[in-house]
Amino acid sequence: MKIIVVGAAGAIGQAVCAELAPRHDIITAGRSSGDIRVDLADRASIEAMYRTAGSVDAVVCAAGEVEFGRLAEMTGEKYLFGLKNKVLTQINLVLAGLNVLTNGGSFTLTSGILDREPVREGSGSATANGALAGFVKAAAIDMPRGLRINVVSPGLLQVSAERYGAIFPGHDPVSSRRVGLAYAKCIEGAATGQMVPVD
Amino acid sequence: MKIIVVGAAGAIGQAVCAELAPRHDIITAGRSSGDIRVDLADRASIEAMYRTAGSVDAVVCAAGEVEFGRLAEMTGEKYLFGLKNKVLTQINLVLAGLNVLTNGGSFTLTSGILDREPVREGSGSATANGALAGFVKAAAIDMPRGLRINVVSPGLLQVSAERYGAIFPGHDPVSSRRVGLAYAKCIEGAATGQMVPVD
Ligand SMILES: NC(=O)c1ccc[n+]([C@@H]2O[C@H](COP(=O)([O-])OP(=O)(O)OC[C@H]3O[C@@H](n4cnc5c(N)ncnc54)[C@H](OP(=O)(O)O)[C@@H]3O)[C@@H](O)[C@H]2O)c1
Ligand SMILES: NC(=O)c1ccc[n+]([C@@H]2O[C@H](COP(=O)([O-])OP(=O)(O)OC[C@H]3O[C@@H](n4cnc5c(N)ncnc54)[C@H](OP(=O)(O)O)[C@@H]3O)[C@@H](O)[C@H]2O)c1
Repeated sequence: MKIIVVGAAGAIGQAVCAELAPRHDIITAGRSSGDIRVDLADRASIEAMYRTAGSVDAVVCAAGEVEFGRLAEMTGEKYLFGLKNKVLTQINLVLAGLNVLTNGGSFTLTSGILDREPVREGSGSATANGALAGFVKAAAIDMPRGLRINVVSPGLLQVSAERYGAIFPGHDPVSSRRVGLAYAKCIEGAATGQMVPVD
Repeated sequence: MKIIVVGAAGAIGQAVCAELAPRHDIITAGRSSGDIRVDLADRASIEAMYRTAGSVDAVVCAAGEVEFGRLAEMTGEKYLFGLKNKVLTQINLVLAGLNVLTNGGSFTLTSGILDREPVREGSGSATANGALAGFVKAAAIDMPRGLRINVVSPGLLQVSAERYGAIFPGHDPVSSRRVGLAYAKCIEGAATGQMVPVD
């Protein structure tokens, strides 16, 4: 299959590429690196990416940004930042791709564990992750041409433990190998509308 | 208890008031009616509402707006509308109330069934509802002074079946009595961080 991986240079993107590259034709994409430069916050940039890529069978999004912070320090703007830069970005990637992917193709988005297992600074992330689970479940039943859509919800990655571990007490970080497998399950399997946890 | 019900004039708000009014002191609030006029889209208006109400033990939000539409007709703006007018509105109601509610008080928000049981035109609503479930689960573990927070997720109400029924094929509408009970469970009970379905 020909597969676009947005955010390919990141911790999750690298896990996805390592798992899929031996069996598939990968096009890497990202804001500041990759075969194609794209900013998911800009719908026109997403459309340009699809034009450059041509016919594709699957799209993975491993990009997304949220604000972390204790509840008393959060503001509406901080929640909105995550809703725009982790949720709307991925939704626009899907909307712009509805007429682009080949029949039976798939979208695989990325959320995260924090709406399933809350941590003290994680309500911005939990809000975005929950939104993605709801979106995917509903969008799946209205996809054209047999397209599928799922969201992978990884726990803290081993490779990210140093960066984020302090806010995840007691979490047992997951291997990049298991994270990569979850994306393979979504792309090479047949499920749709699912939130796929990696714990 | 002294309880603010925002959106008291709506279908759900009326169900909430009917259940709670016999046992509690209810302050109704809404954009165009109620004891206090408030626009949840405006943080300053929310703060003014709390100042007018004085000391309160519980806040219910039964207000929220989303865009409905088939996936192919949806746009980023339509998802953002729901994220702003059903999610951020309720989050701001909580943030502005963190230092206002009496010790042990509660916030009870409103989502809806569509992230649990998708319908074809419902992905905007499913996205907002999922966000609220994630927010409540995470916010609950970081509440000051024993405050609690839950979200009630009603199915289609019997009183709303004529207005929305066409997009809910096969749904068995729920009574306003059972919807009201779910809010009583949240306010008079002890749960926190829960999504309380009414199906
Ligand atoms: N790492 C974890 O342990 C973990 C666990 C669960 C969930 N997650 C979630 O997974 C997602 C990715 O996390 P990560 O740790 O892999 O992040 P990362 O290492 O920081 O990498 C993110 C990648 O996405 C790209 N990107 C970000 N915003 C973009 C945009 N608007 N348009 C295009 N590309 C964009 C970045 O490109 P540039 O650097 O060029 O800007 C970067 O290559 C996040 O939503 C995160 O919450 C992460
Ligand atoms: N009805 C159902 O069957 C059902 C089922 C599940 C979930 N829900 C959800 O429950 C929520 C309420 O639904 P409903 O059917 O009860 O709605 P409704 O009958 O239309 O009533 C909504 C009420 O909320 C007020 N309101 C709306 N936006 C507001 C804002 N920004 N600030 C202050 N007040 C605002 C409205 O006031 P004004 O009219 O004065 O503007 C109105 O009184 C919605 O989020 C809906 O998705 C409804």
